[in-house]
Amino acid sequence: MARVVQVKGETPRLEDYLEAIYHLIHDKGYASTLDISDTLKVKPPTVTLTVQKLAAKGYLIYEPYRGMTLTKKGEKTALSVISRHNIISEFLSLIGVEEKVAYEDTEGIEHYIQPITIHKIEKLVDFLRKNPDQLRAIRDYIDD
Amino acid sequence: MARVVQVKGETPRLEDYLEAIYHLIHDKGYASTLDISDTLKVKPPTVTLTVQKLAAKGYLIYEPYRGMTLTKKGEKTALSVISRHNIISEFLSLIGVEEKVAYEDTEGIEHYIQPITIHKIEKLVDFLRKNPDQLRAIRDYIDD
Repeated sequence: MARVVQVKGETPRLEDYLEAIYHLIHDKGYASTLDISDTLKVKPPTVTLTVQKLAAKGYLIYEPYRGMTLTKKGEKTALSVISRHNIISEFLSLIGVEEKVAYEDTEGIEHYIQPITIHKIEKLVDFLRKNPDQLRAIRDYIDD
Repeated sequence: MARVVQVKGETPRLEDYLEAIYHLIHDKGYASTLDISDTLKVKPPTVTLTVQKLAAKGYLIYEPYRGMTLTKKGEKTALSVISRHNIISEFLSLIGVEEKVAYEDTEGIEHYIQPITIHKIEKLVDFLRKNPDQLRAIRDYIDD
């Protein structure tokens, strides 16, 4: 269920941690340091340090040996990161980028796009979903 | 003419150097270490080291105190970087992202998108250019 992959050579960002923690909690009910370490391919001591940082910033509550829960602020941020991810990913999929590439590219670019741009891409996706004939015409042209 | 801006906190990549050098040579006939330093906001000694690296990799010919010229390989890479930049930038502009934001986002994401995805975005842009009525319908929906 590794929904979060890392861009080659990049260190996971705090946002990646929140995204991973959110998915872990929703998939298996809790997120342990080892789970996060597996998901983000980061060594456990680094995970522990980062989780403490996220706790200090008010994104989560961390109880050693008991696990962690996201605060409202943490959950809100995680959901916004996930929504942004889904919008980009859906756009790439609509224009015919195959799943694996779409996934990698989404992970690559999601942190670099400003909210106003995300909003416009979301509207474009929405338009294409509501206008299947136009989407088909576009896809026929792209795939040609 | 700072066509190349840096993403906050990111070190310019070799591709950024080639892009900057290409533009400098085409705009003023030559590219000096100081020009590149100005454009990329990098200290001159770092520019010198990177330029030497690019020369060692066969992207340019560097003559100290005389400047540099791109090799065929360097020019080809620079043009491909510039073309990728223009495709992303045009797509963002078509969906109504204002110039400054489109510029910043393009600089942020251009290195993280795979060629096949760029190709599909290029075809999408091409389709929208050739079908102004559909573009207008999309823009009306996005801007609403």
